[in-house]
Amino acid sequence: MAFDRLIEKIVKMQNPTVAGLDPKLDYVPASIKEACFAKYGKNLDGAAAALFEFNKALIDSLCDIVPAIKPQAAYYEMYGWQGVKALCDTIAYAKSKGMFVITDGKRNDIGTTMEAYATAHLGTTDVAGEQIDAFGADALTVNGYLGTDGIKPLAGICSEKDKGIFVLVKTSNPSSGELQDMKLDTDETVYEHMGRMCESWGKELLGKYGYSAVGAVVGATYPEQLKEMRAKLPHTFFLVPGYGAQGGGAEDVKNAFDENGLGAIINSSRGIMCAWKKQNLTEADFAQAARNEAVRMRDEIISTIGKITV
Amino acid sequence: MAFDRLIEKIVKMQNPTVAGLDPKLDYVPASIKEACFAKYGKNLDGAAAALFEFNKALIDSLCDIVPAIKPQAAYYEMYGWQGVKALCDTIAYAKSKGMFVITDGKRNDIGTTMEAYATAHLGTTDVAGEQIDAFGADALTVNGYLGTDGIKPLAGICSEKDKGIFVLVKTSNPSSGELQDMKLDTDETVYEHMGRMCESWGKELLGKYGYSAVGAVVGATYPEQLKEMRAKLPHTFFLVPGYGAQGGGAEDVKNAFDENGLGAIINSSRGIMCAWKKQNLTEADFAQAARNEAVRMRDEIISTIGKITV
Repeated sequence: MAFDRLIEKIVKMQNPTVAGLDPKLDYVPASIKEACFAKYGKNLDGAAAALFEFNKALIDSLCDIVPAIKPQAAYYEMYGWQGVKALCDTIAYAKSKGMFVITDGKRNDIGTTMEAYATAHLGTTDVAGEQIDAFGADALTVNGYLGTDGIKPLAGICSEKDKGIFVLVKTSNPSSGELQDMKLDTDETVYEHMGRMCESWGKELLGKYGYSAVGAVVGATYPEQLKEMRAKLPHTFFLVPGYGAQGGGAEDVKNAFDENGLGAIINSSRGIMCAWKKQNLTEADFAQAARNEAVRMRDEIISTIGKITV
Repeated sequence: MAFDRLIEKIVKMQNPTVAGLDPKLDYVPASIKEACFAKYGKNLDGAAAALFEFNKALIDSLCDIVPAIKPQAAYYEMYGWQGVKALCDTIAYAKSKGMFVITDGKRNDIGTTMEAYATAHLGTTDVAGEQIDAFGADALTVNGYLGTDGIKPLAGICSEKDKGIFVLVKTSNPSSGELQDMKLDTDETVYEHMGRMCESWGKELLGKYGYSAVGAVVGATYPEQLKEMRAKLPHTFFLVPGYGAQGGGAEDVKNAFDENGLGAIINSSRGIMCAWKKQNLTEADFAQAARNEAVRMRDEIISTIGKITV
């Protein structure tokens, strides 16, 4: 139930981080691109094949030390349906290697439409009686601007299929405050209000480690708000973007964890994918460099929060 | 620029409506499904082929009287990458028939990720110097919860490529007020604040009919708010869901238009797709029934708002 499976992987690996797979074609080494273009052409088929090869190499290099990946849907959609096929293939490959998969889609809609997104990304699609995984991720990021109608359709699938969601609460970007920090006349900010809704939506979906299937996205770039939200949302598991390239450090993300080192998973995307640039290595060593960076990030965070226990 | 092309189509057809193509497999006539399953199997390939055949027949039946379609991404994603291919094919087919295409994806993210969504849905993707339309819609619905960082990356593409966006302001669902109606301490509601941001984001993207490339989604089910937003957001073109199946009528949507009958496009999805059920026709007549309903809806709205002029 809920994020129990993810928590167990985190504890086993002593690593509360997730590798963001946001494969812009620019990040993919020339040798991979050339091979794929030679085989499929300089087109969306070739580009999508290159993304998948890049991801496979990263997954192979990370899967025994990093519990989860977070593919960002936008970078796959950019390469059309062929890119979306690369997303499907990446999810399946990561799962075959035992990784937990969080699709970062920030999906949102109402009623039957939100049910369709839930079915697409977390559930199984019925085709004339056949039950088929369309994408088959373990968790999905969602946007709660539409209120309960946009979240409730996910609850059934979370509970039946052992899946989770992360609702945007306080995002890591500079302009996130334009709406999220606005004060309501209840004296709460918009993000506090959203956070409180997450606790409420998760009430019936509690897992055995005290965290519900309704998590929240809270950015590392706002450490004070992270601390405040950790205190106010005791059953809400956090997905924390903004570490590394966006400026958040280990001291900042420390605030996301509870006293057992649980309650959060920290994402790094560019920091992992483009690690070779910082390590004085060549492009061809991208997978080893990604592993080096994943180890460094894990060790940095663990040295700050201590041993993770359930 | 902006929604000028859409406005010109609306005026020419004297029809301010858009057909929502949200093809759940349940809505697709048995004869189409059987043919596609026989050809491709009872799988995602067969399902996606059926969606596309259904959409093609609807587009053929509507394209000379309805200016636009609005495919809802969720219903395509539900059928995996194959369904997403059906979305690509549907967009291309509708454009070949002269229709304006609004992809309803409610996408949202920040910086380079939002750029990737903009490129995917409205722009052209660079693959080793080749410029390729990944999805190629004319407009995209987006969610503004992340503030300016989530919207600005769309501005360049809107201006260069003659595209538009619709930002969620006041959605049509029952729980939309849980966040959107909350009062800020500035005495504005959250949806008013979001509406005002739309006007501000659109300032540099004004078209020749006075509407900018940054539109807003405002639901027909909240006619008072629709009226209020129309008055407060003079340069913001509205996409209005909630007519028909969700309960909004012609008197309700009248509030979305300016004194020239411009400023809004009204969506109907189930009302069009499943029109045969209400017309005492058989499933096989779904395309003719959709056309009948599109004519009825057009006439009902035009009889309420009068002739549309620029």
